[in-house]
Amino acid sequence: MSPAPIAPLAVSLGDPAGIGPEVVAKCWDHRSAFNLPPFLAVGDGRSLAAVWDGPIVTIDDPRDADSAFDVGLPILHMPAPEADIPGRPSVAGAHCSLDSLELAVGLARSASASAVVTGPISKQQLYAIGFTHPGQTEFVAERCGVASENVAMMLAGPTLRTVPVTTHVPFAEVPAALSQALIEARARATLRGLQRNFGIADPRLAVAALNPHAGEGGALGTEELDLIGPAIDALRAEGWQIVGPLPADTMFHEGARSRYDAALCMYHDQALIPLKALHFEEGVNITLGLPIVRTAPDHGTAFDIAGEDRADPRAMAAAIRMAAECAAYRALAE
Amino acid sequence: MSPAPIAPLAVSLGDPAGIGPEVVAKCWDHRSAFNLPPFLAVGDGRSLAAVWDGPIVTIDDPRDADSAFDVGLPILHMPAPEADIPGRPSVAGAHCSLDSLELAVGLARSASASAVVTGPISKQQLYAIGFTHPGQTEFVAERCGVASENVAMMLAGPTLRTVPVTTHVPFAEVPAALSQALIEARARATLRGLQRNFGIADPRLAVAALNPHAGEGGALGTEELDLIGPAIDALRAEGWQIVGPLPADTMFHEGARSRYDAALCMYHDQALIPLKALHFEEGVNITLGLPIVRTAPDHGTAFDIAGEDRADPRAMAAAIRMAAECAAYRALAE
Repeated sequence: MSPAPIAPLAVSLGDPAGIGPEVVAKCWDHRSAFNLPPFLAVGDGRSLAAVWDGPIVTIDDPRDADSAFDVGLPILHMPAPEADIPGRPSVAGAHCSLDSLELAVGLARSASASAVVTGPISKQQLYAIGFTHPGQTEFVAERCGVASENVAMMLAGPTLRTVPVTTHVPFAEVPAALSQALIEARARATLRGLQRNFGIADPRLAVAALNPHAGEGGALGTEELDLIGPAIDALRAEGWQIVGPLPADTMFHEGARSRYDAALCMYHDQALIPLKALHFEEGVNITLGLPIVRTAPDHGTAFDIAGEDRADPRAMAAAIRMAAECAAYRALAE
Repeated sequence: MSPAPIAPLAVSLGDPAGIGPEVVAKCWDHRSAFNLPPFLAVGDGRSLAAVWDGPIVTIDDPRDADSAFDVGLPILHMPAPEADIPGRPSVAGAHCSLDSLELAVGLARSASASAVVTGPISKQQLYAIGFTHPGQTEFVAERCGVASENVAMMLAGPTLRTVPVTTHVPFAEVPAALSQALIEARARATLRGLQRNFGIADPRLAVAALNPHAGEGGALGTEELDLIGPAIDALRAEGWQIVGPLPADTMFHEGARSRYDAALCMYHDQALIPLKALHFEEGVNITLGLPIVRTAPDHGTAFDIAGEDRADPRAMAAAIRMAAECAAYRALAE
């Protein structure tokens, strides 16, 4: 018996005035070179046509995506009240980006799509229409019925995966935002995510220190002794492979990276500085801890270059490829 | 008239029980491959003999170093009361490392050496003998009569130079340790250092933000508005080329690095994570703002591998090479 066919990937276009439509279209153009599986776009088809001359196939049923994909870029058309102009975000466009995201997540939840890849939205625009989540990650988590502390935002490139324990909080508030419980929850989401999405049976996690030189035994800060160390001990007692707390500056060179499957970081820039220094063009954001696979390119709407045919599609291609790989690992395990 | 000969470099061996002697000896071994100029070692010659079979030439006068260098590794022998065993630091060894550092700095100050390269010491050991400086950088600054806020510790690799504004302070104390005056002082030391030591007439400085996304206009922290932005404005008014405050995660990829000569960072790991992720084996520490040139390999004593012939000399070689280059730029300017 041949394996059951995997449903196509659903790719939300993000804000119609951003670079999302352009990079998704370029991914279809270069689907062979990028080695991409069939996917369908979810969003306003006019935002594609505004920046791209290629063939668009409007579909009503995700099951038509596979056959349509050979002919053109399949889209579940979600028309905004009026079409946006690239580079000029609008309230209508923000609504459209949110509706598209919601539909794409719904397709994945109902298994009509094997995974969801989310194009870049504008938080500024969404806040203006009453969106109350810090970002798409938390919105997707809520729609999947998962508490936000039990998901983890992983940033992944070809040679490094990082997960920040705290994300969009001011630097000065990071120490207070850290707790042993939160570190453990993010670590577990990361470890289980490595198993489910990456097929790593016994994943190895490296945990970064907060303070320089890992606190030098308390002389340069005590979070390693008070929070991070005890969290590591608790996780080890559960049987996980963990090293740390490691001095953050010496854990991201090539030799060090080869010794772990993911690095748990204490704050946003600690996770993102090394990831983007090494893998700027192809960073993928993947949400761990969800019942579905969700990835995204690690860049924003870039309104300033939208519509100029300058957007680099490599991160979107990497996000689509990773979503397909993760979906395949999950299908294998089921 | 031919240019006056440049004096040799003085290289202090650091703690005799650490890997300093081994990496200095390996630099002499591979002086051609590493493209190194003549240098003389300062320290206990027995610490070299304990880990190396090569020829050692004891000299009394630095002027003999050039001719001796073809025959063997020249050393100004500073005997400790007893010889250390590699990997087993002692109080006597700590005294020896401090005496060697002091002599090497003195040679540079008197122009008997064109620059000083300092081997790794053990702060733990030095604290035990009453050393009160946070590190060698501050000790050297004091011996040169320069206030520590007017020097800057630059970490340099082949494609990136970073300077932390604050260094060995706990994460939670970084915001309070930052001030507009300190940011400006470090920036000026960096900019003048780029001119004097690297021959860059109109240096470009990129200044990192403290908060994620550069604080998002105050929503994610206010240090950019209160301290970093005003410091940048003041420096620009002096005519310097400055950009920032930049989100720290997007300023270290290849394209971004090509747009500045040095990055001013707000804290230790912000400067050292990208530097070591990219250039772990060849990071050089150079102190800017001194009347002399001082460099050091960006690694520690590594007592755990001392005496096992496993130490990588590339960072020491890079430190010696950079010291020679900086000394040459200074000689040109005089």
